[in-house]
Amino acid sequence: MNIEELKLQELDPEAFVKERTSELVATVGGGTAINALSGGVDSSAVTLLGHRALGERLKTYFIDNGLMREGEPQRVVSLFRDMGLAVAVLDAQDEFFAALKGKSDPEEKREAITDTFYKTVFGRLVRECGARFLLQGTNYTDVEETVAGIKRQHNILAQLGIDTEEAYGYTVLEPLIRLRKPAVRAVARALGLPEEIYNRPPFPGPALTARVIGEATPARVQLVRKATKIVEETLSETGAFQYMAILHEDRVTGMRDGKRDYGLQVEIRCWDSEDAVTASPTRLPLEVLEKMADRITSEVPGVVSVTYNITKKPPSTIEAV
Amino acid sequence: MNIEELKLQELDPEAFVKERTSELVATVGGGTAINALSGGVDSSAVTLLGHRALGERLKTYFIDNGLMREGEPQRVVSLFRDMGLAVAVLDAQDEFFAALKGKSDPEEKREAITDTFYKTVFGRLVRECGARFLLQGTNYTDVEETVAGIKRQHNILAQLGIDTEEAYGYTVLEPLIRLRKPAVRAVARALGLPEEIYNRPPFPGPALTARVIGEATPARVQLVRKATKIVEETLSETGAFQYMAILHEDRVTGMRDGKRDYGLQVEIRCWDSEDAVTASPTRLPLEVLEKMADRITSEVPGVVSVTYNITKKPPSTIEAV
Repeated sequence: MNIEELKLQELDPEAFVKERTSELVATVGGGTAINALSGGVDSSAVTLLGHRALGERLKTYFIDNGLMREGEPQRVVSLFRDMGLAVAVLDAQDEFFAALKGKSDPEEKREAITDTFYKTVFGRLVRECGARFLLQGTNYTDVEETVAGIKRQHNILAQLGIDTEEAYGYTVLEPLIRLRKPAVRAVARALGLPEEIYNRPPFPGPALTARVIGEATPARVQLVRKATKIVEETLSETGAFQYMAILHEDRVTGMRDGKRDYGLQVEIRCWDSEDAVTASPTRLPLEVLEKMADRITSEVPGVVSVTYNITKKPPSTIEAV
Repeated sequence: MNIEELKLQELDPEAFVKERTSELVATVGGGTAINALSGGVDSSAVTLLGHRALGERLKTYFIDNGLMREGEPQRVVSLFRDMGLAVAVLDAQDEFFAALKGKSDPEEKREAITDTFYKTVFGRLVRECGARFLLQGTNYTDVEETVAGIKRQHNILAQLGIDTEEAYGYTVLEPLIRLRKPAVRAVARALGLPEEIYNRPPFPGPALTARVIGEATPARVQLVRKATKIVEETLSETGAFQYMAILHEDRVTGMRDGKRDYGLQVEIRCWDSEDAVTASPTRLPLEVLEKMADRITSEVPGVVSVTYNITKKPPSTIEAV
């Protein structure tokens, strides 16, 4: 790997923003660029950085892949509107679910999303708007984990030997690639992003498909979306590094109205971590966990069982899929 | 259901033992009976009750189905030897695993065990030893849950309309059928069983197959046996009602030596309960849970993730399968 980490303690966020802005101006010149905003800290920082460098010549899209959290598209668009930035929403739900149909293997699911995102949806967008550059929020941990073979991050292309210019017709620019999450947060803060964004818990690239073991059908994504909302509502004030609900494929025996209900299980994970490289389960009070289980089994149809992850990373990973 | 519960507060254990003993003498007369001892409180109480009534005319077998906990056959036999009772061990592992082969559905698994137990193994034993009676530790909760359709307990036959005399060639006697677990424990104590038995956490009839989601192969049963040992070693002093390890079929992403290891997940359940009708997860310290997770991921091959159940019964059940 020929990319060198720029550590948080060596980072001057203001200087970093200036340098990357100048680089973008030099690279893109009078051309146009596009970027996809997910609302995560990485893509949000890149969006602001890009607009600072390119102004109206950067077109920002929110790709609604049908795999986002409840209310996510509306929330992100309105948040950036408040900062004076126009974000176009592109409804691509059917294309993503068509690509995911019948796929249970995590790598196949990731690949379906990567292909749909970069080739089908973004390829078309780029052709339509004539942009030759794609700005992207790839960070240092993404690169490292992909190179190490732990998992293929959706946004790693060059590192895997994929020539995006040849494959998809555009050049990918990754101004945050030398930073890990804490450094990205510092840059996001320096860019004037609200705390809601720069302290936002990470959310995986493949979005809620990473929270569904087995096939990510629209119905199963909808179930994990409801469970995710309950977990996030309960845990957003804890200061934990990341928290999530995962819908399992295994069925477990439960009971409703005195009868057997062979139902679904949801796993909750909540992590304490500095950098996502190692992590420990947050020691939440069991009362809090039980309340989430009560809500999930009452409010999410078919769920009869909820568990809490008690394994460290490693040997666990943050996400299950 | 025409069986009336005999509640703990109405039970005189000594009188109960006398009455059931007389009944057994009257029913079996000069004939012989057999019973299967699993080492659980129900079958242990029935074994002592039967020997008190019938002496040598009751033959007690420990059926080694390959689905027991580590060291269980040896432990149970030696415990009863110390009480002056001879227990014959019958190795039927191959027959049980042959019947379980390819079966993932919980009801099919239960049925395979019930059939192998009552028809193949016990049918043969009864024919060989000429016994016309089978003593069994069915309790009131078993009957109730089967009748309610929550799950089919392995030892419920008459209640399901199965005529054992016609189907298997013997009559089933169930002296504990009016008692729930706490009352069975009181009777076990009155019979002079050691506390290790009368306060023993319940263990399901289908044994470790109930702790494996999906197919119960010898290899998968061996994995859950190792995890069970760790959970029992850790939690035996807690006074919890019941605790268990469950091997899931779903695979989750993990990492070993810096590489992805798409591995197994084990779920731990530990219950507070009076009567198994309702139950709550025991509020164990998360430190204790994490230590179990560390041991399980280190000592049980292929396990990368451990969870703790945080759902009440209902809507959960005590067991997952």
